[in-house]
Amino acid sequence: MIIPVKWSDEGVQMLDQRLLPTEEKWLTLKSYTEVADGIREMVVRGAPAIGVSAAYGIALGVKNFVGTNIADLEEEFDYIAETLGKTRPTAVNLFWAIDRMRRVFQANKSKSISEIKQILIAESKDIHEEDIESQRMIAEYGGELLEDNSTVLTHCNAGALATGGVWGTALGVIRGAVNQGKTIAVIADETRPYLQGSRLTAWELLQDNIPVTLITDNMSGHLMKKGRVQAVVVGSDRIAANGDVANKIGTYMVAVLAKQHDIPFYVAAPLSTVDLMCPTGEEIPIEERDIREITHIKDIQLAPEGISVNNYAFDVTPNEFVTAIITEKGVARAPYTESLRKMFED
Amino acid sequence: MIIPVKWSDEGVQMLDQRLLPTEEKWLTLKSYTEVADGIREMVVRGAPAIGVSAAYGIALGVKNFVGTNIADLEEEFDYIAETLGKTRPTAVNLFWAIDRMRRVFQANKSKSISEIKQILIAESKDIHEEDIESQRMIAEYGGELLEDNSTVLTHCNAGALATGGVWGTALGVIRGAVNQGKTIAVIADETRPYLQGSRLTAWELLQDNIPVTLITDNMSGHLMKKGRVQAVVVGSDRIAANGDVANKIGTYMVAVLAKQHDIPFYVAAPLSTVDLMCPTGEEIPIEERDIREITHIKDIQLAPEGISVNNYAFDVTPNEFVTAIITEKGVARAPYTESLRKMFED
Repeated sequence: MIIPVKWSDEGVQMLDQRLLPTEEKWLTLKSYTEVADGIREMVVRGAPAIGVSAAYGIALGVKNFVGTNIADLEEEFDYIAETLGKTRPTAVNLFWAIDRMRRVFQANKSKSISEIKQILIAESKDIHEEDIESQRMIAEYGGELLEDNSTVLTHCNAGALATGGVWGTALGVIRGAVNQGKTIAVIADETRPYLQGSRLTAWELLQDNIPVTLITDNMSGHLMKKGRVQAVVVGSDRIAANGDVANKIGTYMVAVLAKQHDIPFYVAAPLSTVDLMCPTGEEIPIEERDIREITHIKDIQLAPEGISVNNYAFDVTPNEFVTAIITEKGVARAPYTESLRKMFED
Repeated sequence: MIIPVKWSDEGVQMLDQRLLPTEEKWLTLKSYTEVADGIREMVVRGAPAIGVSAAYGIALGVKNFVGTNIADLEEEFDYIAETLGKTRPTAVNLFWAIDRMRRVFQANKSKSISEIKQILIAESKDIHEEDIESQRMIAEYGGELLEDNSTVLTHCNAGALATGGVWGTALGVIRGAVNQGKTIAVIADETRPYLQGSRLTAWELLQDNIPVTLITDNMSGHLMKKGRVQAVVVGSDRIAANGDVANKIGTYMVAVLAKQHDIPFYVAAPLSTVDLMCPTGEEIPIEERDIREITHIKDIQLAPEGISVNNYAFDVTPNEFVTAIITEKGVARAPYTESLRKMFED
C-alpha cells in the first residue's frame, strides 16, 4: 500500500519520487519552506498529492510558529500560504487545499494559538483521509466502466504516488476494476520528459501484480491502430467548469488518438481538481519547466548545446474528447457544465 | 555540408551517429561484416543512408574477395547480400540497393574479377551520387510547398544524416524552402527512444543556422492546438504502392494530430523508398528493437527491473493522412496507387 506523503511529529514525510524506481528513500521535511521546495522540485507530484502536501505544509508552518500574538500568526499564515501557492501553477488542488486551510484558520482565529495549531494539523489530516476516501470511491465508480479482459492505456502517473495514497485516480479506476474481479492489463507510456510512466506507474503496478507494458509516448497511436487498447484512463491537474481537462503534457495527443480509434477516454479526478471558477481550459495556466528536463537525463547530454527548447508541463484536452469524468460523487458526462456543477450540489 | 557515409580506399567511412551531438567521430569499416554491424547497430540510420551503406558494403565485400573463381565470387556475393539484408527489416532502400548491385553483378559476370570489382565500386558510388541528386530535387519540389514565414514540425531525423548527405529528405524540403528565400522555423520532436530528433535533427539544423526548437514527442498536439505549426514534413522507410507510409514510430500519431488541426502532412522520400511490390502498409514488416533502448539511457535505469516493454521502431500512416509525397520526380498526391506508379513510368 503506497502512501507517498505522511504527517509525523518530526515533520512531513515524503517518499522522494525523483529517485524511483531504483531507490526508495523517505525525506523528513521540517519546515514549510522545505515542503514548498519538495513540491516545486517534484519530490512529490500529482495534483491530489500536491494538495495534501500543501495542507501539511501549512499545518507544519503554523506548528513551527514561535510567536504569541494572533496577528503575527495571521501574517505568518499568509506568508506560508503565499510561499506554498507559488510552487506550481497548474494543479488546482494546491490552491483548493490552501483555501480550505485558510477558511479553517479564519473560523478559529478566536481560539488560542496552541488550539489553532492542533485544529490545523487535524484539518490537514482530514484532507488527507478524505482524499484517500475519494480515490476509493473513484475506484469503485470507475472500475465499473472498464470491461473484463481489456487493456487500458494510461499516461503519466495518476496512481497512489500522485494522490494521498492507496488507490490513485486513473490507477484507482484500474485497481477498482481488478478488485471487482476483472482481468485488466495496462499499457503505460513513459511520459517524457519526467518519465512518470516508466519510473512511477510501472513501479506501482508491478507492486500490485497488475500486468503492465511500457511504451514510449509516440507508440500509443500504433497500438491503438492494432486494436491493443480498449480504454484510456488519465488523471487531471485541473478540470474547468465546462469539462476541459488540464493534465500532463501529451494527454491531449492521447485523447485525439483515442477519438480517432473510437476508444473511450476517461478522466479520473476528485472534485478538489474541478475548478468551477475557471470557465474553460483556455484560462488554465500551463506551467513551463526547466529545459534541462528535456536536454539531459541526469548528467547525460541528449541535445546539442544552445538548442532552443519548449517544455510545457501540461496541456488542455477539450471536453469534446472526454467520454466521462469519474469523481468520488459518481460519473459525469457531457454536457459537463451541468453535470460537474451538479456534483457539487449533491 | 554533412555526408554521413563515404567510400575510401581504406574502407567505408561512417560518422558514428550514436555519439552525436556531443562527439563527432568517424569510423573506417574494413569489411562488409563491419558495415553490416554498422547498419544493425545504427552507426548509420535513415532509409536512404542505409541503402547507400549497403551498396558500399557489397562493393567492399567484393573488393576484399581473394579468390580467382567467378563461381566462388558469386557464392560470396550472395552471402554478402544475405548478411547485409538481415540487418534491418523495414527500410526498403536496403533491399533496393542490394538488388541493384546484384543486377549489375549479374550483368557483368562474364568480365574479369578485377573488372567486376571496379564496376561494383563505381555502381555504389553512382547510387550515392544519385541519392544526393534525388534529395536536391526533393528539396526543390518540396520547398515550393512550404509557405514563407511558417513553422514546420518534423519527426525523427530525415536529414543529411539519414541519406547520402547534403540535403536530406524532410530536412531537404526545409533546406529547399530556405534556399528559395523563405523564412522557415523548425520544431523538432526528440523522437524516443533513440532521440534522433534531439541528437541529430537539432544538431543538423544548428549547423545550417535554421531556427529549431526542440520538444518532447508528446508536445506536438499542444503546439498544433496553439497554432504554432503550419506544416509537417517527415521522411519514410518504406512507402507501399497505395501510399501508406512506414516511418519512425510516432509518425502516425503526428499525422492524426495534423489532420485534426487541418495542417498539411508531407512525406519526402526518393523513389528508392517506394515499394510497388508492397500493396499496402499492412504488408510492411515492422522492426522491434532491444527494450533497453526504452528502459535505459546509457547506464541510467529509467524503468523498474523486469518490466515488460514494447519497442516498435516504426509505424504505418495510412494514405488518407498524407497530403502529398515529395519525390525526386515531383509531388505525388492521392490517389497514390496511380500517382506513385506514374513516377516510375516517367
